[in-house]
Amino acid sequence: MRELQGHDECCCLNTATLGHREPIGVVAQRAAEAGFGRITPWRRDVDEDHPERAAEAIRAAGLKVGGYARTAYFSADTPAQRREAVASNRRALEAAAVLGSPSLCAVVGGLAPSSRDATDSRKQILDGLAELIPTIRATGVKILLEPLHPFYAADRSLLNTIAQAQGWCEQLDPQGEGLFGIAVDAYHVWWDPMLEASIARAGTLVQALHVCDWLRETRDPLLDRGMMGDGVIELRRLRQAVEATGYAGPVEVEIFSKLDWWTRDPDEVLQICRQRLNQRC
Amino acid sequence: MRELQGHDECCCLNTATLGHREPIGVVAQRAAEAGFGRITPWRRDVDEDHPERAAEAIRAAGLKVGGYARTAYFSADTPAQRREAVASNRRALEAAAVLGSPSLCAVVGGLAPSSRDATDSRKQILDGLAELIPTIRATGVKILLEPLHPFYAADRSLLNTIAQAQGWCEQLDPQGEGLFGIAVDAYHVWWDPMLEASIARAGTLVQALHVCDWLRETRDPLLDRGMMGDGVIELRRLRQAVEATGYAGPVEVEIFSKLDWWTRDPDEVLQICRQRLNQRC
Repeated sequence: MRELQGHDECCCLNTATLGHREPIGVVAQRAAEAGFGRITPWRRDVDEDHPERAAEAIRAAGLKVGGYARTAYFSADTPAQRREAVASNRRALEAAAVLGSPSLCAVVGGLAPSSRDATDSRKQILDGLAELIPTIRATGVKILLEPLHPFYAADRSLLNTIAQAQGWCEQLDPQGEGLFGIAVDAYHVWWDPMLEASIARAGTLVQALHVCDWLRETRDPLLDRGMMGDGVIELRRLRQAVEATGYAGPVEVEIFSKLDWWTRDPDEVLQICRQRLNQRC
Repeated sequence: MRELQGHDECCCLNTATLGHREPIGVVAQRAAEAGFGRITPWRRDVDEDHPERAAEAIRAAGLKVGGYARTAYFSADTPAQRREAVASNRRALEAAAVLGSPSLCAVVGGLAPSSRDATDSRKQILDGLAELIPTIRATGVKILLEPLHPFYAADRSLLNTIAQAQGWCEQLDPQGEGLFGIAVDAYHVWWDPMLEASIARAGTLVQALHVCDWLRETRDPLLDRGMMGDGVIELRRLRQAVEATGYAGPVEVEIFSKLDWWTRDPDEVLQICRQRLNQRC
């Protein structure tokens, strides 16, 4: 397993970790000072009419872009809303290309708001993803399907396991051209009894690794993620499984924590994140 | 698919639905009046030193016992605690026999409180279940493994999918003597992309069906379950899948709802449950 200490290029900060309190240029500077070599901005951090501005701010801090977060939900009640989601996601792919991001992270959407039909909503999602293929080819930015924790199946994502994500990748890209990959986020998948087996089976489709921790007493299922080492996830074991597939990309810290980490001093948060990457991931 | 209207024997009330506010005899009377033919008590409703008293109260109301809820967690930090859990679960099997329950529902436990090792905690659980086999044989009460929603993996159950439960049944009872079965609870499994396939594959191991609903805006992951029809689960489709395995047992209503249904008049709750069984399940 790779050593993270002293290897800033392996360490990526997802900007959500600081709660989107400051402009991307400031966050990038702080991240660089704390020992991160890469950053994954969210779309809200970027003016997608002028993504070159964010690209320049990130470059000026000496960072590379690890990824780009994230797609609009593909499932929706009306065809017009579904078309709008696809159009939005095309713009995100184009912005990701300008940012120099190798990928766009996909949070695919849950049940369409007025629907109970998971089969139909999953079909809407797959249809929407397929519509992006020409833009994936044109931009060279691939889409990483991120399975979300089953807690979010109704309202955020009907893609909930690594095995399911692998099936979707194979369905969307039957020739294996590398148009789609899988983002493994510890928080979403740690519980899976098939975790290590499904990572091994997905193999080189695994193209991102996000870390944080699952707190035993989770107060809010969306915004109470823990710092690495403060919860129950065996993060080193997970990274080992992911790196055994040949994965050599960054380890990305993504902590949503309204009640704790988002209220703290950004430099303190980053320093702790960077230490915990060395010691606990 | 079976008709539930007019078929009270197919309709079972899990006593948690009323929030454990009244003694089992009163709850059984109310359930019978509302059109339930069966009841599943919790251990807290029963004096396990004298389970014949609860048995008599249930009989007096004209009800049969659908099941018995539930095991103590098998995973624990010390061998003494694990032995205590097994001993407690033996007592539960014996009480279930006196109650006339065909089964005891198993909520198996999450990570041992001081552990991050899911593999080891799962092993503790399987070891504990195996220790119950002589008591299962002696009492004739089988254990139904209930996969819980992955949200509870840390603190309540490391058994989280129907496929996993099937694997455990086969491991624990390789000769297929019928010592173990699976309880399918809509709330816990509805999100599973393999839901219908894994029910079909589990076949006759499926021996209980619990219903409630998943509210799109879930305020509390433990105690904010919805009434059937108020959420997003396709309950009829689920029941169809379960009955296609040959399942002919009751449909059991189990609603944990501190914020809503537990605050309402018990008879009103039961009346609505019974209507929704007819109309939405």
